[in-house]
Order: sequence, then C-alpha cells, then structure tokens
Amino acid sequence: MKSIIMVGAGNLATQLGLALAEVGFPIVQVFSRTKESAQDLANKLNSDAITDINSLRNDADVYIFSVKDSVLCQLIPNVCRGKKDKLFLHTAGSMPLDCFKGFANRYGVFYPMQTFSKSRKVNFKEIPIFIEGSANDTVQEIRDIASSISDYVISLSTNDRQYLHLAAVWACNFVNYCYSVAADILENKDIPFNVIIPLINETTQKVHDINPKDAQTGPAVRWDKNIIEKQMNLMSSFPSKQAIYGMISKDIHEQNKQ
Amino acid sequence: MKSIIMVGAGNLATQLGLALAEVGFPIVQVFSRTKESAQDLANKLNSDAITDINSLRNDADVYIFSVKDSVLCQLIPNVCRGKKDKLFLHTAGSMPLDCFKGFANRYGVFYPMQTFSKSRKVNFKEIPIFIEGSANDTVQEIRDIASSISDYVISLSTNDRQYLHLAAVWACNFVNYCYSVAADILENKDIPFNVIIPLINETTQKVHDINPKDAQTGPAVRWDKNIIEKQMNLMSSFPSKQAIYGMISKDIHEQNKQ
Repeated sequence: MKSIIMVGAGNLATQLGLALAEVGFPIVQVFSRTKESAQDLANKLNSDAITDINSLRNDADVYIFSVKDSVLCQLIPNVCRGKKDKLFLHTAGSMPLDCFKGFANRYGVFYPMQTFSKSRKVNFKEIPIFIEGSANDTVQEIRDIASSISDYVISLSTNDRQYLHLAAVWACNFVNYCYSVAADILENKDIPFNVIIPLINETTQKVHDINPKDAQTGPAVRWDKNIIEKQMNLMSSFPSKQAIYGMISKDIHEQNKQ
Repeated sequence: MKSIIMVGAGNLATQLGLALAEVGFPIVQVFSRTKESAQDLANKLNSDAITDINSLRNDADVYIFSVKDSVLCQLIPNVCRGKKDKLFLHTAGSMPLDCFKGFANRYGVFYPMQTFSKSRKVNFKEIPIFIEGSANDTVQEIRDIASSISDYVISLSTNDRQYLHLAAVWACNFVNYCYSVAADILENKDIPFNVIIPLINETTQKVHDINPKDAQTGPAVRWDKNIIEKQMNLMSSFPSKQAIYGMISKDIHEQNKQ
C-alpha cells in the first residue's frame, strides 16, 4: 500500500485520514500548524505529528493537502520541494488542478463532496469523490486510491468542479444556515428544536423523488402576501435575516411564475 | 365518530383528509372553488364534492378549513353561518385563533407542521400537530381528534405558533429553495442531481445530533474570501441569487464571530 502524508488536520483531513487508514494505507505523518490538531489526528491514525513544514518526510508516496483554500497556494511550493516524483493531491472543491503546476510533476485533485466534522464518523463508501489528474496514468492512480474508500469516483474538470462546489454550498452550507435561523427562532420561544425534525426530514426526503421546484410549498410559492409581510415583521430585530427572507421569498415567487 | 367536512382540497387538505378517513372519520363533503380539486379529493375520501359554498351541509360535526390564508377570512363568515354549535377548525400556521370570533361559538386551530404534496403520502403519526381552542372543552375535543392521527399533539398559543410557522418556513421552504438553486447549477453543467443526495442527507442528519451553528461548514464560516468572491462571480448571470449568496455568507460569518 502507498504511504500517505496528510497536510492538514481539519474536519476533512480527519475523516479522509480515518477512511484511508481503515482500508490499510499507512499514514506516516500529519502536518498542521496547530500542535494540538496535528497530535489529535496523528493519535487517531497511529501516525507522527509535525508542525514544522521542514520536518516533512520526503519518502512518502502521496501527499494529501486538506487545508483552508487560502493557505493551499502558500504551502504547495514548500511541501513539493525536493520530492520530484511523489504524487500530490488537494481536496478543495474550488481550487484548480493547476495550482500544482511548476511545483510538481505528478499531481491531482481528490474532492470528496460531503460536510465533515471531526467528531462525526461518516460512511465514505457513499460519498462521491471527484478526481482530476495531471496525466492519464496519474488519474488512474488517483482513481485506485479513491475507489478503495468510495463506490462513487467521478472524473470532473476544474471548471465543472467549481460549479459542483457552488451547488454544494447551496445544498449544504446554506441549508444548514436556514436550520440555524429556525433554531434561533424556536429557542427564543422556548420551543424545543426536535419538534421541527419531522419537517426537516420530509423536506429532504422529498427531493430524493421530486424535482425541488415541484416540491416547493409555503407562503412564498403561494404568494400569500399577508403572511410574508407578517413574517417579515416578526424578524424586524434581525435586519439581515429579514432582508434574506424578503429576497428568497421574492425569488421563489419569480421562479414559480416562469 | 364525528363527521367532518373539508373546506379546501389542496396539499394539506388532501393528506389530512386521508389521515382522518383512515382512522374512521366519515368525511361527508369536500369543498373547493375548483371542481377538479374538489372531485379528486372527494374520490379519494369516498365523499361528495361541492364547489358552491351554499351547498354545504349543516349537519356535520366538524368543519376543517385548509385554504390559502388570504381566502380563509372571506370564507369563515359564509361557512359558519347557521351552524351555531358545530366545531370549526383551521390549519394555518400564521392565522390567529380569533379569526373565528363573532362567527362561531366553538372553534380552534389544528396546525400539522409538515410540507405536504397531494401525491406524496406522509406518516401522520410522526407529524406534530399544534392545537388551540376557544374554550377548555373545545381544546379537549380537538386534542382527541388530533391524537387519533398523530403521536405528537401540542397546545400552542397563536402568538407562539406564528414563530413556529416562521421557523418552518426557514427549515423547509427556504431549505427547498436552496436545493432548487443547487439543482439548477448542476443541471446547467449536466451533472445529475443525485450526486448531491449524500451531502443533502448528511447535512440533515447532522442537525439531529448537533446544534446547527456547530454543524456549519463551508467557505463562509471559514471566511475563505477568495472562494466566496469566485463563487459570487459564477453567479453573475443570476443577480438575485448572487445577492442572496452574498448576504447569507456574510451572516454566517457574523454569527461565527459572536
């Protein structure tokens, strides 16, 4: 099995590292600028923690970057230096394949589309992994690694991947934002959040079978102006949420007219 | 069993009517202004369809209004007239108990918090029903009806119910809107919607156990400005969605700073 070094120890690095270790890849080092994060993940992976990029071993087969996008470009030159024939991968939805260009010979993208938390184990088998590589044989190598942990490995270009990531932000991050607004509203009225769980479940379950546009319900799609106005008033102490409420309602209405 | 008349034949009326009929309530009439809707639901409930409010029988025990909120206030005086001792219920999240005042003696609210589609059968047992009544004995009568179809019957005041409904709009209608934006983005790139289903499922599953604020991931909570700008640019042909993207991202960031 190829030996792997995790560059990064955040949510994604944690779950990906665990999945790779589980199928037998030796994770020989974990790098993070934060000592605690590096050590935490290294403990889970039976690996060595480092916080100094100069301590990186240069004898691993694969280096996987799972870091904040803004840090990725700074790290690449330092990590790739002196490791000519190694395979370098990043896991970022919106970063191009080309960010390795000029710094590495064999490189690629390994983007598992999921929302990860450190403490929450996920079933990687069900997570689609979108891959891209610097050459055909590299793509095949990346595909082999990805297929060992997931049943859904899909080749996707940098350009399409950025739209995929945008869709993921809407379907996950912004959905979770809506949940958090709902949670706040309920909390203010001492209504337990779990009363809304059946509604949340059914909303999600619906789009397994029905196009989301056809699944739309509520005051905005009915253009129940009285209710929309009433609800806008209930949010008057939260101007940003009030504005978002108004814009989404209007957009649902516009979509429905089409 | 009490005999029931459904005033309205939309998504909620359909699923509620089915649930009530299933446990044995005779649904003796279905009223809708649209002949087809009235007939469709009447067929499902083995009931009579009417489109003229003057044809309403006055010998039923319970009259349940499931109509667009803006229509409810117009219908109440006409439906309640000459039916002094009958029980009148509406199913609207944001309409007050008092909209019956002066038109009926025994009345209440029967709000099942769920997203309903005509064609999609739901398990009413799991749906919380929020009730309110004009007097204590009326509340008990409403509770008995509600408990026959759901395991979660909760008394809630008009004031609190409007906040509950607001939370439901965020957790369901706006979540579904986010799904529809994601679906459009994927469709434009010929990526099948089902690749995003595992992400959608996990996002929902997470808030069963974790507070939504703690579950937040993505560029906005990391305040990855490069990515946020890049994604804003990808949406430049859709100015309303671009604006909503910007406002939600900013709000996620602000929340995270608190």
